[in-house]
Amino acid sequence: MVGLLLTVIMLLHASSTSYSSSSPSSAVLQTLFQYINDHQNEFVQRLGEWVAVKSDSSNQALWGEVRKSLNMTSDRIQAMGGQVEFAEVGTKQLPNGESVALPPVILAQFKRDPSKPTVCFYGHTDVQPAKKEDGWSTDPYTLTEINGNLYGRGATDNKGPVLAWLHAVETYQGTKQEMPVNIKIIVEGMEEVGSDGLAELIRQRNDSFFSDVDYIVISDNVWVSRHPALTYGTRGSSYFFVEVEGPKLDLHSGVFGGSIQEPMTDLIALLGSLLDNTGKILVPGLNDAVAPLTEEEKKLYEDIHFDLDEMKKTAGVKRFLQDNKEGILMARWRYPSLSIHGIEGAFSDPGSKTVIPRRVIGKFSIRQVPNMEPAVVETQVKKHLEEVFAKQKSPNTLKVTTTVGAKPWMANVNDVPYVAGRKAVKAVFGEEPELIREGSTIPIANNFQEVTGKSTMMLPISGHDDGEHSQNEKISRYNFIEGTKLFAAFFHELAQLQKDS
Amino acid sequence: MVGLLLTVIMLLHASSTSYSSSSPSSAVLQTLFQYINDHQNEFVQRLGEWVAVKSDSSNQALWGEVRKSLNMTSDRIQAMGGQVEFAEVGTKQLPNGESVALPPVILAQFKRDPSKPTVCFYGHTDVQPAKKEDGWSTDPYTLTEINGNLYGRGATDNKGPVLAWLHAVETYQGTKQEMPVNIKIIVEGMEEVGSDGLAELIRQRNDSFFSDVDYIVISDNVWVSRHPALTYGTRGSSYFFVEVEGPKLDLHSGVFGGSIQEPMTDLIALLGSLLDNTGKILVPGLNDAVAPLTEEEKKLYEDIHFDLDEMKKTAGVKRFLQDNKEGILMARWRYPSLSIHGIEGAFSDPGSKTVIPRRVIGKFSIRQVPNMEPAVVETQVKKHLEEVFAKQKSPNTLKVTTTVGAKPWMANVNDVPYVAGRKAVKAVFGEEPELIREGSTIPIANNFQEVTGKSTMMLPISGHDDGEHSQNEKISRYNFIEGTKLFAAFFHELAQLQKDS
Repeated sequence: MVGLLLTVIMLLHASSTSYSSSSPSSAVLQTLFQYINDHQNEFVQRLGEWVAVKSDSSNQALWGEVRKSLNMTSDRIQAMGGQVEFAEVGTKQLPNGESVALPPVILAQFKRDPSKPTVCFYGHTDVQPAKKEDGWSTDPYTLTEINGNLYGRGATDNKGPVLAWLHAVETYQGTKQEMPVNIKIIVEGMEEVGSDGLAELIRQRNDSFFSDVDYIVISDNVWVSRHPALTYGTRGSSYFFVEVEGPKLDLHSGVFGGSIQEPMTDLIALLGSLLDNTGKILVPGLNDAVAPLTEEEKKLYEDIHFDLDEMKKTAGVKRFLQDNKEGILMARWRYPSLSIHGIEGAFSDPGSKTVIPRRVIGKFSIRQVPNMEPAVVETQVKKHLEEVFAKQKSPNTLKVTTTVGAKPWMANVNDVPYVAGRKAVKAVFGEEPELIREGSTIPIANNFQEVTGKSTMMLPISGHDDGEHSQNEKISRYNFIEGTKLFAAFFHELAQLQKDS
Repeated sequence: MVGLLLTVIMLLHASSTSYSSSSPSSAVLQTLFQYINDHQNEFVQRLGEWVAVKSDSSNQALWGEVRKSLNMTSDRIQAMGGQVEFAEVGTKQLPNGESVALPPVILAQFKRDPSKPTVCFYGHTDVQPAKKEDGWSTDPYTLTEINGNLYGRGATDNKGPVLAWLHAVETYQGTKQEMPVNIKIIVEGMEEVGSDGLAELIRQRNDSFFSDVDYIVISDNVWVSRHPALTYGTRGSSYFFVEVEGPKLDLHSGVFGGSIQEPMTDLIALLGSLLDNTGKILVPGLNDAVAPLTEEEKKLYEDIHFDLDEMKKTAGVKRFLQDNKEGILMARWRYPSLSIHGIEGAFSDPGSKTVIPRRVIGKFSIRQVPNMEPAVVETQVKKHLEEVFAKQKSPNTLKVTTTVGAKPWMANVNDVPYVAGRKAVKAVFGEEPELIREGSTIPIANNFQEVTGKSTMMLPISGHDDGEHSQNEKISRYNFIEGTKLFAAFFHELAQLQKDS
């Protein structure tokens, strides 16, 4: 992993001095861009039709709408001559015990030319819940344009990007140009609730649907500023459960308070040993594995546009732990972090209750970065907690468990799709993309990369202020339309690179 | 308070050498005890009828049963010539918004002789919930005698003691002996859910019903061993809410983890500063107010029977913080304790969620002892938490609030009812009572003492292993019947003391 990171850094550094973009005057691109400009109202109207479908996957009563959104996607693909398979992914057990069939996953492809590279796009058409009463200024299922922004649930997450991808394919057909790449598409309807069945489907189809795929592209995240970006890394994550068990039943704090060592006292001491007030993780050895920061990498962060004041306002925090942009970006992307999420088993309702809980489970997670290994982190955390617990000299029992840790994901920006992506950004936006990471863990990226072994890329077209999952979600007309151009240009540049090599 | 405590200690010390009990051969007592022995099966049968009433006050659908249990109490009192008032105590709003009338409180009295002292007994006929499936060996509402124990919900808490009190009065009538004291009775049906309306009723009737009461007696707690006991103190309690508020909304730990100071990190540091692993409270100054332990008081604990191994087994703890009986009793009764009960606002469900909660409220309580003052404790705790928070250098906001603190309750064992109680115990059981305290806070004792200013006493007849609130609650036939004798003898001794003075 260190090797990979260094390669990335060196390439990034090299790119800032020697990279030369495709000519924006390329006749092919001009034709494509003109078509997209000419058809933009039609594209926006279609997004309106898609947003009108209440495909909220969190509500099983609305799975019919989820299926409808998948059918609309299929109709679009088939109208362009694509072949669609609705792959069944099993059933889900509802809280009432009933088993219901999950919405299927679309696996689509167009006529294949073995001489061309094959790109597989992943997207989803299900959305987060939305109600006008939640604080939306407009009806969430009526796409509404205000000052160049297209407001509506799913506009940016992820209906807009899925449509932009399809519109990019349509643009080649509409301008009677040969598709420069083979296209495969995977679209699901359960992303917002955990992508039920998808991982298993990828495994099942690894030797068939995915066998001839060269590049997998995901457009389900956002830029970090008003400038276009390519995402080359996400943090991994391990979730820890620290259980302290004491008496055989909950006890009354009046009767037993002062005479027994309470599980909560032990747990608070354990949780309190994890990090300090600067955010530094205090688990011995844990930070040693973090890839060292070189001067070259440090410079990368200088070029990224990131508005501290706007971010403070958005999150409603008075100040960040770091006092400058570079520090904050590094804290989010290239350093590990530890968050304590809560305690199970203790009193958590409003009001007061004088219980001594017999068994409490503290929960925290650690976001991991290159070159941390979840298995090593697990060992370090357990050892640390056991040492702290030993000092408590407690008669209680400690048990530390962890969910399988997701490794940090890191792409090599020297890979063909990143180079193509940078050329495409330059062609569309006239500037270099920001090379960014995500602080969060995006399991689907890891999943594709680990199971298929294919080069996986995150190519966002959504704005940093689009408010995915929030009230007043939107995508700007600019991002939606220029994003469509970006995808069209990306196909072109990808093919060009293949020809050049 | 120090003065009072010292008096208590000196008297207790004196009593162990110079106290001389009433003669158990007293003809009056012999007659009373014989009657009780002769009628014990009838008394047990009546307890069975009372236990059969499912007067679970926590379930509003069962308030009809609560009223039935009060009616049975009233019938018993009236059958003995007592006058009963059902005092209404207002309404309770249910979660569905409906207001329902609370079960009334019984205020009863017998014909009054102004030359005699007046004793008011407090009890309750409502019970905790109970279902066979919860792990009862017998049907909870069918009083079942096994090896001398009478199993059934409410057998010891508090139907048995209420009946024992009424049977003691009946015994005087049955033996054609004049009642040596005036009797008043207050019985409620909402004790297990917080005695709704009772405090207000006491205030309202302070100048009427309570005006001629000399002594208030409560028999709603338990012995500490197999030996009879008088209870002369309870700890007070203050409940604290430590709120840390940060961002304006819950944040994603992937996106923000590492770049903001999380409210949970601050809260864990605050809670971790409260006590150490020996149970010692670390709030500066707090322990200074604790009445010093004298050699005389220390000796008191030596005489108390307390089976460490049995208590370990009951609570299911491997060991106590103190390694001997005296230490444990003092930790429970005469030293303050601090218990952390839980956190509101953090993730508390099963499973995992990677949230950074925007606002969390830690909850803890401090059991207080002479000579601590809740108002001073509040100031000390707030100052301490503010100092710890200042060291966190946090951009978050701290708010510490507390519920009105209940002062520790402490009776003077030199008061007439305690002297009478000790004579009565000697007469019935042939031994000195253990002079004990309760670690918990019993608001009704405080309430009576503070509002009425009357001498208030706790005179338990329930066994230390009766399992109030638990499965398989019981009272032994021995405790029920000898407890009835204790109350009968108590009336006699009280009157004797008045005559002697």
